[in-house]
Amino acid sequence: MPARINPGFLQVRHRYLFQEVARRVAAFRESHPRADLIPLGIGDVTRPLSGAVIEAMHRAVDDLSDPATFHGYGPENGYEWLREAIAEGDYRSRGIAIGPGEIFVNDGAKSDLGNILDLFSGDNLVGIPDPVYPAYVDANLLDSRRVRYIRCTEENHFAGEIPQERLDLVYLCFPNNPTGAVITRDRLAEWVRYAREHDSLILYDSAYETFIRDDSLPRSIFEIEGAQECAIEFRSFSKTAGFTGVRCGYTVIPEALSIGAPSGERLELGPLWVFRQGCKFNGASYVAQRGAAAVYTEEGRRQTRQVTDYYLGTAAVIREGLTRAGLPASGGENAPYVWARTPDGMDDWEFFDRLLAGTGIIVTPGSGFGEEGKGHFRITSFGDRKRTEEAMERLKHFVDGL
Amino acid sequence: MPARINPGFLQVRHRYLFQEVARRVAAFRESHPRADLIPLGIGDVTRPLSGAVIEAMHRAVDDLSDPATFHGYGPENGYEWLREAIAEGDYRSRGIAIGPGEIFVNDGAKSDLGNILDLFSGDNLVGIPDPVYPAYVDANLLDSRRVRYIRCTEENHFAGEIPQERLDLVYLCFPNNPTGAVITRDRLAEWVRYAREHDSLILYDSAYETFIRDDSLPRSIFEIEGAQECAIEFRSFSKTAGFTGVRCGYTVIPEALSIGAPSGERLELGPLWVFRQGCKFNGASYVAQRGAAAVYTEEGRRQTRQVTDYYLGTAAVIREGLTRAGLPASGGENAPYVWARTPDGMDDWEFFDRLLAGTGIIVTPGSGFGEEGKGHFRITSFGDRKRTEEAMERLKHFVDGL
Repeated sequence: MPARINPGFLQVRHRYLFQEVARRVAAFRESHPRADLIPLGIGDVTRPLSGAVIEAMHRAVDDLSDPATFHGYGPENGYEWLREAIAEGDYRSRGIAIGPGEIFVNDGAKSDLGNILDLFSGDNLVGIPDPVYPAYVDANLLDSRRVRYIRCTEENHFAGEIPQERLDLVYLCFPNNPTGAVITRDRLAEWVRYAREHDSLILYDSAYETFIRDDSLPRSIFEIEGAQECAIEFRSFSKTAGFTGVRCGYTVIPEALSIGAPSGERLELGPLWVFRQGCKFNGASYVAQRGAAAVYTEEGRRQTRQVTDYYLGTAAVIREGLTRAGLPASGGENAPYVWARTPDGMDDWEFFDRLLAGTGIIVTPGSGFGEEGKGHFRITSFGDRKRTEEAMERLKHFVDGL
Repeated sequence: MPARINPGFLQVRHRYLFQEVARRVAAFRESHPRADLIPLGIGDVTRPLSGAVIEAMHRAVDDLSDPATFHGYGPENGYEWLREAIAEGDYRSRGIAIGPGEIFVNDGAKSDLGNILDLFSGDNLVGIPDPVYPAYVDANLLDSRRVRYIRCTEENHFAGEIPQERLDLVYLCFPNNPTGAVITRDRLAEWVRYAREHDSLILYDSAYETFIRDDSLPRSIFEIEGAQECAIEFRSFSKTAGFTGVRCGYTVIPEALSIGAPSGERLELGPLWVFRQGCKFNGASYVAQRGAAAVYTEEGRRQTRQVTDYYLGTAAVIREGLTRAGLPASGGENAPYVWARTPDGMDDWEFFDRLLAGTGIIVTPGSGFGEEGKGHFRITSFGDRKRTEEAMERLKHFVDGL
């Protein structure tokens, strides 16, 4: 008898959305080698790093060339100077009492969104929005955890109905991937109230918070009173500062957070996470951390803002293009994703294939994000502006010709 | 009832060796602020990156500053140019048939040594050497997997007795951490024979292979016939090229490897790992990968070799120093770690405390690596040569004065 597979894998085989998109695109490219494709599918940035970040990374590389300034293993949870910059720049300066000891630097939010589950037993009941970033679901299915889907529809502004039943863990993501929806402060306060009433833990993904331009919207769940007793927040420099290839993010685990042990005792979550990371992680790259710290300088902030402004401008182009094409769309304001209905309720994978064949535009089929995504598709604003304008022209012609 | 803890945590609380060493050192430093400490405990490198790597990393940072050469998300399992360089440089050029499709680039071996366990059900029986790098044990205890210890003693040259019983997974690490032992080709072939006979899977940690200077010793388990059907190999640029702060390593999962499903079917391991990584990882930093690729250039090889030569020279200093102090030692040849017995069978934590107080030298107490480590300690050769020489002087005086 060989070593035996984690049975969770039997539930997720063949589930990976972006790999299926890539497979279909590769097949199309092979049969149409001269097709002029415009990729608006995967949420990967295309603008270069800002000058302040580039300079800081060069200096960091130089540090590693000299025994006097060489850095080997860093603290598993990040250098103090970065944790301090994050706590000050993203929290305390906005009136949120989060300190550097509650910041845990990582190599990107996706890692921690999955790895955090190592802390929780398999019998926790997990609430996951639908539609949703597929990795939340996959990571839980790998652990054979039971999942309840929280329907996010146009009717509830994609912010999800507060469930009647008790859930142990609840994922929320705002600005949302894939719908581009944002959540109001009042609505988020309702989720915090639910979590506190039910002793639930919210896993709050705010990887896209820098796209928020409307000051009435919450950028962090910790703007809501009481959230420090019921939420972990996940952030990333990927979309805020163009770090998808650099790899740096962070997780906020407030000191007040605890978890239940079989003895009935409650254990602090932070030290458990430190142990988990000490066991399976060795810190983010020194060069990436120096780059991330530069995002918090005055120059870094200004330059980073210019880049997110650019993407938001592209999102507006997409919204207008969809409107001109007669396709109902949402998102793309305070968020980099636009979410739209397929023409005449066409199946979204069929739409994906026909759009690709007819125009070369690559979108992401909504059903890849869940049942509620059926008949929808996602467009990202991270592409080149001119190419996106071109895509919107092609899309209108395509829809007009259906 | 709050969200519930993974019960594996209840078995590992307070286990983390290096955190305990750090705690004791911090306490000592606080009470003796002027003490002249010489850290020979943690296996972290101190020599700077080689010139070829530094240049490659600068170029990579520049790539990220220009839209034309910008790199966002890379392939989750590493860029083809790095996988190709690894396959050619570390395997094919040495007559081992491993291709780039079997190489999975990561952010360091520790991550994958833990994360690989996501593939396996909790009911696999795991064999782990004793003494051992504590993370192997911790990662399995977190999953509540049953562990059998494989005694590694002077009598069996720290290469472990081949077990009588069947084990599903077996960890091996050569050159060894903590003992600095190496394994002969014949002995490793016995392990491969055992694994093939019992349908076991060997998790082979060869993070220290570049310290091997004796050509009769195997640098990869895949030098042994049949190993591709029963072993995964873990490698790192941390110790070979000074990447402890840069973060890059790789895992080799041969195409021939499979795992058992409840249906009786066998599933290929590689695609399962791709799915796992797609779900919880987003690739190693582009800058780190460019640096790693430079290790395989002619200049990179030569410079890297000089650094490992330096550490091996320091290891020789340690061996001689221990011999002069009358302490029986092993390792430190073809390996960066030296393993020694405490004087007169002194308890190793007591030795740690008394050595620190008396000389300022920081070593790692052997019992932190397991039962068989009791009465031993580990010294690393990654420190500064002159300081290590000074430490050996102090050590002799300390032992003479006992």
